[in-house]
Amino acid sequence: MFTETNQRSIVKGITWRMIATTTTVVIVYVFFGRLDLAIVAGLIESVLKIGLYWAHERGWHKIRWGKERIEPFNLWFTGLPLSGKSTIADRVFIELEKLNIPIERLDSKDIRELIPNIGYTRDERNNHIARIGHLIKTLQNNSISTVASFVSPYRESRKQIRDMVKNNVVVYIKADIETCKSRDLKGKYDKAISGEYKNFTGVSDIYEEPQYAEIVIDTDLLSIDDSVTQIVTYIKKDYIKN
Amino acid sequence: MFTETNQRSIVKGITWRMIATTTTVVIVYVFFGRLDLAIVAGLIESVLKIGLYWAHERGWHKIRWGKERIEPFNLWFTGLPLSGKSTIADRVFIELEKLNIPIERLDSKDIRELIPNIGYTRDERNNHIARIGHLIKTLQNNSISTVASFVSPYRESRKQIRDMVKNNVVVYIKADIETCKSRDLKGKYDKAISGEYKNFTGVSDIYEEPQYAEIVIDTDLLSIDDSVTQIVTYIKKDYIKN
Repeated sequence: MFTETNQRSIVKGITWRMIATTTTVVIVYVFFGRLDLAIVAGLIESVLKIGLYWAHERGWHKIRWGKERIEPFNLWFTGLPLSGKSTIADRVFIELEKLNIPIERLDSKDIRELIPNIGYTRDERNNHIARIGHLIKTLQNNSISTVASFVSPYRESRKQIRDMVKNNVVVYIKADIETCKSRDLKGKYDKAISGEYKNFTGVSDIYEEPQYAEIVIDTDLLSIDDSVTQIVTYIKKDYIKN
Repeated sequence: MFTETNQRSIVKGITWRMIATTTTVVIVYVFFGRLDLAIVAGLIESVLKIGLYWAHERGWHKIRWGKERIEPFNLWFTGLPLSGKSTIADRVFIELEKLNIPIERLDSKDIRELIPNIGYTRDERNNHIARIGHLIKTLQNNSISTVASFVSPYRESRKQIRDMVKNNVVVYIKADIETCKSRDLKGKYDKAISGEYKNFTGVSDIYEEPQYAEIVIDTDLLSIDDSVTQIVTYIKKDYIKN
């Protein structure tokens, strides 16, 4: 949320004055044929109107009418661990930030680092996602859009998000489990297979594929660049007014 | 977050034109002594400049310079169950909303209803408060202030909030436990004493009084109206620019 500074109103007054006084001088000259008088009239007008313009700007600054709430959306990235959700979501976020809309990035990893012991059982995951839903909803109350990436393996929790937030756009990042393993430089899948990680989605816990997703990205077929373009184009078309 | 509509720019153009053209007509009349020509010049100027003004407004609408982020604050109400936190916080929130700043109300009860099984053990409470801290921090990233009311009985979790958020204002709602019991129409304290409610602050769990709070409200001495006034005055003085 922004407020307008006094300087902004002053500088706007000056740029406007340059346009406006030039027009006045031309009009007076065309009418009376006296350039000298036209310029003097223009000068007096300038001094007087810079002050009036400033007062007019500050008055309007207090008026809410014509300031429209921006409609927020939620991009919800779901998919197996290491399918590429965060990578693509990060890139999409950077592109959307450039559009000067209020937007937040929410990533599973950041939040789990901040608040430990969230847990990975079905109940714990569902509770976690419900809280994320509450966070997104509160942000949306304030016109803030979100780019959220969470494994979110269960249909019921993705449905809960859809029920809680508005303009929900599910992006299913589809990747073969063998592809995910090949990207796994930290050996998470190995630790899951050996039993060191419990309830690991794709190994010891199920991933329920979305029955419906607004966008499906098949990472075996589409490059990261093309995926980002496809998602950003979708958002621009449906949610960005110009 | 707001964006400015085209209509706003048009209407601003018209109000400005009324001020500006009147000045031009007066100047031209004073200089040339011919009211008829002054009015015709004013009319031509009007038509031309309404369009120019509109274009000038739309151009500036795309410029971020001079739009300043609003600095957010967090009002954190702590105190025993039924001490009056929510009642006073609700009233304070209504007063602060009138100042046209972006602000959210966060109440323990609403969030516990939305996300069940948060729990009341020390660990569960601390985790809960950490998540609320994350929520407030995310809102603050977007210039949104908060009015939060949570029993928050432990020093470590209130300290965590202070470390996570900026412009934190702790309001300790101080009430004698007998006073709280007398306000307890739903018999929560009775249920806690009988053991139906576990870990109930003030009965079966401790409340660690704040060592430092920006504002202390003694509800045995101060009326609700006076409490609200004291808190709103504090915020206006330190956090509201005009």
